[in-house]
Amino acid sequence: MIPRYSRPEMVSIWSPQTKFKIWYEIEAHACDAMADLGVIPRENADAVWKAKDVEFDVDRIDEIEAVTKHDVIAFLTHLAEHVGSDEARFVHQGMTSSDVLDTTFNVQLTRAADLLIADLEALLAALKRRAIEHKDTIRVGRSHGIHAEPTTMGLTLARFYAEMDRNLTRLRTARDEIATGAISGAVGTFANIDPRVEEHVCAKLGLTPEPISTQVIPRDRHAAFFATLGVIASSVENIATEVRHMQRTEVLEAAEYFSAGQKGSSAMPHKKNPVLTENLTGLARIVRMAVVPAMENVTLWHERDISHSSVERTIGPDTTVTLDFALARLTSVIDKLLIYPDNMLANMNKFSGLVMSQRVLLALTQAGVSREDAYVYVQRNAMKVWEDGKDFKTELLGDSDVVAALGVESIEEKFDLGYHTKHVDTIFKRVFG
Amino acid sequence: MIPRYSRPEMVSIWSPQTKFKIWYEIEAHACDAMADLGVIPRENADAVWKAKDVEFDVDRIDEIEAVTKHDVIAFLTHLAEHVGSDEARFVHQGMTSSDVLDTTFNVQLTRAADLLIADLEALLAALKRRAIEHKDTIRVGRSHGIHAEPTTMGLTLARFYAEMDRNLTRLRTARDEIATGAISGAVGTFANIDPRVEEHVCAKLGLTPEPISTQVIPRDRHAAFFATLGVIASSVENIATEVRHMQRTEVLEAAEYFSAGQKGSSAMPHKKNPVLTENLTGLARIVRMAVVPAMENVTLWHERDISHSSVERTIGPDTTVTLDFALARLTSVIDKLLIYPDNMLANMNKFSGLVMSQRVLLALTQAGVSREDAYVYVQRNAMKVWEDGKDFKTELLGDSDVVAALGVESIEEKFDLGYHTKHVDTIFKRVFG
Amino acid sequence: MIPRYSRPEMVSIWSPQTKFKIWYEIEAHACDAMADLGVIPRENADAVWKAKDVEFDVDRIDEIEAVTKHDVIAFLTHLAEHVGSDEARFVHQGMTSSDVLDTTFNVQLTRAADLLIADLEALLAALKRRAIEHKDTIRVGRSHGIHAEPTTMGLTLARFYAEMDRNLTRLRTARDEIATGAISGAVGTFANIDPRVEEHVCAKLGLTPEPISTQVIPRDRHAAFFATLGVIASSVENIATEVRHMQRTEVLEAAEYFSAGQKGSSAMPHKKNPVLTENLTGLARIVRMAVVPAMENVTLWHERDISHSSVERTIGPDTTVTLDFALARLTSVIDKLLIYPDNMLANMNKFSGLVMSQRVLLALTQAGVSREDAYVYVQRNAMKVWEDGKDFKTELLGDSDVVAALGVESIEEKFDLGYHTKHVDTIFKRVFG
Amino acid sequence: MIPRYSRPEMVSIWSPQTKFKIWYEIEAHACDAMADLGVIPRENADAVWKAKDVEFDVDRIDEIEAVTKHDVIAFLTHLAEHVGSDEARFVHQGMTSSDVLDTTFNVQLTRAADLLIADLEALLAALKRRAIEHKDTIRVGRSHGIHAEPTTMGLTLARFYAEMDRNLTRLRTARDEIATGAISGAVGTFANIDPRVEEHVCAKLGLTPEPISTQVIPRDRHAAFFATLGVIASSVENIATEVRHMQRTEVLEAAEYFSAGQKGSSAMPHKKNPVLTENLTGLARIVRMAVVPAMENVTLWHERDISHSSVERTIGPDTTVTLDFALARLTSVIDKLLIYPDNMLANMNKFSGLVMSQRVLLALTQAGVSREDAYVYVQRNAMKVWEDGKDFKTELLGDSDVVAALGVESIEEKFDLGYHTKHVDTIFKRVFG
Repeated sequence: MIPRYSRPEMVSIWSPQTKFKIWYEIEAHACDAMADLGVIPRENADAVWKAKDVEFDVDRIDEIEAVTKHDVIAFLTHLAEHVGSDEARFVHQGMTSSDVLDTTFNVQLTRAADLLIADLEALLAALKRRAIEHKDTIRVGRSHGIHAEPTTMGLTLARFYAEMDRNLTRLRTARDEIATGAISGAVGTFANIDPRVEEHVCAKLGLTPEPISTQVIPRDRHAAFFATLGVIASSVENIATEVRHMQRTEVLEAAEYFSAGQKGSSAMPHKKNPVLTENLTGLARIVRMAVVPAMENVTLWHERDISHSSVERTIGPDTTVTLDFALARLTSVIDKLLIYPDNMLANMNKFSGLVMSQRVLLALTQAGVSREDAYVYVQRNAMKVWEDGKDFKTELLGDSDVVAALGVESIEEKFDLGYHTKHVDTIFKRVFG
Repeated sequence: MIPRYSRPEMVSIWSPQTKFKIWYEIEAHACDAMADLGVIPRENADAVWKAKDVEFDVDRIDEIEAVTKHDVIAFLTHLAEHVGSDEARFVHQGMTSSDVLDTTFNVQLTRAADLLIADLEALLAALKRRAIEHKDTIRVGRSHGIHAEPTTMGLTLARFYAEMDRNLTRLRTARDEIATGAISGAVGTFANIDPRVEEHVCAKLGLTPEPISTQVIPRDRHAAFFATLGVIASSVENIATEVRHMQRTEVLEAAEYFSAGQKGSSAMPHKKNPVLTENLTGLARIVRMAVVPAMENVTLWHERDISHSSVERTIGPDTTVTLDFALARLTSVIDKLLIYPDNMLANMNKFSGLVMSQRVLLALTQAGVSREDAYVYVQRNAMKVWEDGKDFKTELLGDSDVVAALGVESIEEKFDLGYHTKHVDTIFKRVFG
Repeated sequence: MIPRYSRPEMVSIWSPQTKFKIWYEIEAHACDAMADLGVIPRENADAVWKAKDVEFDVDRIDEIEAVTKHDVIAFLTHLAEHVGSDEARFVHQGMTSSDVLDTTFNVQLTRAADLLIADLEALLAALKRRAIEHKDTIRVGRSHGIHAEPTTMGLTLARFYAEMDRNLTRLRTARDEIATGAISGAVGTFANIDPRVEEHVCAKLGLTPEPISTQVIPRDRHAAFFATLGVIASSVENIATEVRHMQRTEVLEAAEYFSAGQKGSSAMPHKKNPVLTENLTGLARIVRMAVVPAMENVTLWHERDISHSSVERTIGPDTTVTLDFALARLTSVIDKLLIYPDNMLANMNKFSGLVMSQRVLLALTQAGVSREDAYVYVQRNAMKVWEDGKDFKTELLGDSDVVAALGVESIEEKFDLGYHTKHVDTIFKRVFG
Repeated sequence: MIPRYSRPEMVSIWSPQTKFKIWYEIEAHACDAMADLGVIPRENADAVWKAKDVEFDVDRIDEIEAVTKHDVIAFLTHLAEHVGSDEARFVHQGMTSSDVLDTTFNVQLTRAADLLIADLEALLAALKRRAIEHKDTIRVGRSHGIHAEPTTMGLTLARFYAEMDRNLTRLRTARDEIATGAISGAVGTFANIDPRVEEHVCAKLGLTPEPISTQVIPRDRHAAFFATLGVIASSVENIATEVRHMQRTEVLEAAEYFSAGQKGSSAMPHKKNPVLTENLTGLARIVRMAVVPAMENVTLWHERDISHSSVERTIGPDTTVTLDFALARLTSVIDKLLIYPDNMLANMNKFSGLVMSQRVLLALTQAGVSREDAYVYVQRNAMKVWEDGKDFKTELLGDSDVVAALGVESIEEKFDLGYHTKHVDTIFKRVFG
């Protein structure tokens, strides 16, 4: 987690304060449930809630942990300092540390997912707004980096919208998958604690009880979660790469926003670098690199080992913080993206009209010209555009074979951009409803 | 795709024959739709169906491709040999190769997913059957590879069931996500083909029309698909690792099935190797290694480049064939797994009763003994078990402090296995309903 | 291993014929060594060499394996069919299957490395030739895809040369690391076979004896090997990406070679797609995806398990065949790359002279103008180029402040391209010696 | 970088203080070189060294950066506060930020490598010491987790030594590869700075000048570096896994050291968890996950983009800090590993003498008994051991067929452990010289 690629709200989910607060809530709710079940006295359960508004003292807990060598015990000791040791004596009864730790981790991931969902929604709003704005802004579609046929900037943005909308669905699924809790004891048998405690705590924390756990919540859930983040990050890279391409000097169809006063922007006006989207390309890798380790974590020996723990301490915060930052950055890039329709047209016409050669070829064969002849007709005119900078339509209109086959009007019609945009509304309807 | 790790049905999905058959269906259905729209004559559309039962000649198509240098054109040429060139002249009109190729790839992935879904269902059936069979078979639960508290073999199998059941849900989602088709032309604008053709073809092939495509179907779908296979493979590894542990000489709580006649099985009865599950561990890696490249494939330049293609030619068949084989192998392992309840008990009692020390410690403190004293009481008896091979319960019953605190009956009760299994039914109900 | 991305010589290394030939050589040399040590009769060792020129019958061996269920035994049985069963009775004495299999795998990897080394040498030759050819071909250097300062095409090619030359060194190291053999028995103790047999066999096969093995050769060697292939593949992607960028319609500074007759090349002259280098981008991912599994293979349980085996059956052939093909394809791309110096100049001058703005700014401050003033001077002239298409030098020469500060001659000098190329020879000397 | 998995010396390499110190040294040495070349006045170069012992004020630099939005400029401004603005005016002349940043990163990686080399040397010393200590400690070798033939604990440790010794060689190579620097300007042409400045600075910093750079040092070097760390981490996992297996309750051949006073160690003497080596398994994944992103970083657009930067900010510190910690932890584990020779013998004899069945089978066939008969003889005795707990040697000595074939003395000899350890010295000589 690099500060410069972090936003405070997501970072705070992973702070010691937040962690202890969740620990506290788990323990307090568990006491309530145990009191309801008659396992512990009600007054002891009530007493725990005295610490409801306490901001736990991380340094003090660390101090205790230095002695006890156990983080949960250190916390419980500190809690007793607030609640009173006698009142606190039933806290954590029948539970194991993992009950607290694993449930907490899932609470954190769930909250992180909620922020990421909001991030995606903001990104979708930006994409939609800009897509509608540029629905009819003509630009050349490119396959292999080479001009193919006309399309519109709106379609480009609409497909990014559709892709991110799928990601939103995936993320919601992943969020629900990870929103489970377990309070099932040392090997998951509930030997020392009633399953109803788990049910109560989960309900209070907005979690589903894990149907069957061992000492830990099964890690296939986490693997699926981090894999989903990896897919989203890959889509971030996809959009970022489009912007990077559009901004390069020779293309210049769009540019990341530069504030007027931003240094260097005007003395070297050509040197406005797409550093935000380049950065997003790298951030995507950081999110993605967690996917395989998260999958390696699925295999634990018997009822658990702790091989997964250090990995999760790293990737839990790192991927969610990085992706949160990346989505927000991307939203801002899209929101303020400078789009240059004139340059789009100029690029499309770099070889004047040549982008229509495929359509002309098709029209000739449909008009009954043999494939071979059609090819020759198109070729001799195309080469004049390519090599001598002529205008393709003008040349075709001056070619008697082509005119004989298609007629002037039809040749003109082949250069009508409306032909290429006639289904834009249909597609927008599919995407935006 | 290694033949020894392959099953014919999945392999056949990826054969050239299957591929050409799907190409054919796409083209024929597209002709139908175009005829319905009045774009091409009905008789030409009908004529294409003459090839309905043709087994296309792969060698002949390769021969043509050697000349045309283009796979789809080679196929169309061959198709015309069956349908008649004149009749076939409207086939593929307004379409691009990618319309056929991408839609076909998704048909193949969808069919592959269907086989994998059936594989998972078979595995779930085996896991459920064995779980119920061993619901009450006591074994020691282990954390960190070290004895913790008693559990049952049925719980182990039930949690594998629950994990694979989640994988089934994930796979169904991934299958539906990949079941899309696109016939939208060179840059996705439907300039040369009506969107209703796409709708018709997709309906006939059991696909959903891709709401917005470029020249290709967006690759976030494929990334999510292969990521899902990676999660499933990781669960395969998880189960395989449990079996490998159980079969090791010192543990011997289970073993992969050995037929009576299998060589080497009885002259060296100790040398029955868990080679199937070791193999599954490796196969899991093969499936998983496709995940990152599939994510790297999401980023394509503008309306498409072909960087993804070679990767997909590799991982499409390799991961689905490998996972299909792995799931079938795992099902067979589970189905026939030799389970040794006596050894499970013997292992649990390796240090006679010591596995109950935690519970006794807890009972002492709950009975009012201070933590420090409770610890001393348990320790002095535990060490006699650990070092001198004594029986823990016998020692406790002979320790006046312990007897004073707990009473004989309560000490006896601490060694009751029913304490640990009392919620097995609850958990089974959660898992199996 | 996809046929279309394969070359026969590398494929043949991984054929069953080659494998059996190596098995044979190991067994025959081992017999020789055992005869020399007096462990088996000399005539039996000699008899084995009767099969020296035999092309082993793969189908027959498969047939036997179907019965024996063991590949090495099947081979030995077939070998006895050639040598005579009595004569062959000492073959494989004291050895285990892994002695043969692991040593064979390393022989294959070593041979594969030798081919890859030759591939790299050919690539280096092509890069060097083209680098020298275009040593002084001016093009604009770009950071962030944006014009920065002039450089030369030769420098671009020279740095690819330097990168691939480092890869050659890495590959040679990896080759030597993997060129080991082991004939040390079931757990590596040489209990049943003299270490001198291993030494003899290794010497004959061009291998170094593995200093200490278990049942297998340690897999850190293989991890390092496949990691090296991954680095090389990443460099392939690096060069491929440069070509893809250069070929895009708006840049067009270079293009993959198109034969005159290649269809589509002239009717749509703008549509020459960089499909070879796009393909190389994908192939790089295929090679790279083996790296992590190869690292996961390092951990084996105790003296060996077979979790690594299925992975290696896949990645052994797949990565070497793919990288061999990729290097050969890249060599051909470089060798025949169409380079367009005029377009390079035209691109550099897209905003006439603006690429020199940084240098002018620097010169002004060095001439004593304050940073703020220098910035203003440059800016007002740069904007005229950027917005109105003026020529930067002309504007500067017409700006009295600039002329006052620098003088006409010095302004002219700032546009001298020689300033940027003056150290090209030095760099070439560093790279090519 | 997680504090609990970090050691201060490695962390300090990545501190802002260290970074600024290296920046300073680069600038100061560059000034020296420029003064020597007559490019700037000698006194200005000398003046820069006034800041030689300054501890740069990170907060102050951050404060300036908040205004300038540029880290290097912020540092230079702060440097001028120490040196005097007039004296400092030639600092950084003709250089670009990347010259400083990239060279600094390589200095940090080189220093990190030096620490890691020392870590490996310490680990090797521990492995060697323990290997020699247990050279003759008999334990059973296992393939597939199943008893195979006897070996010694010393051989296990010696092979880990050999593996880590190869890693040391690899790391030294990787260190030298990364120990380069570049001061070559905006696109690597040395347009604004003499190559001799680069040579001087590199010499002073213990680096080799990068033969050809662009704006950045080529990233194949970094890919190779992080790949090497990934291989080393995989070896850490390999050793850790062996310890984890040895410590599991049923095996108990070794255990991570527990101090006498460590809580829980004696009340639950069976519950000493191999948490250190489990943790090492996870840490290995953290190091390994950097490998693929580092390879993805190799491809940069033209003369550079910054997609690599965020990845390196993450993996630079994270992998080196984690691996440093892991190696130190592993060294400590090995150093203090509790090894239980008695348990090793007891495990080997779990099925009394059965581990010798393979050798007896071999002896019978070598004595002229047919394979089929030999198999029957061994089988009938082996089954009595396996099923009834008899002693294998006793049974064989009571089997008249076996005695007839081998004689009593030879049967006894087959159970001589010396047969299996006779080449231990040879192997140790190979490993330790």
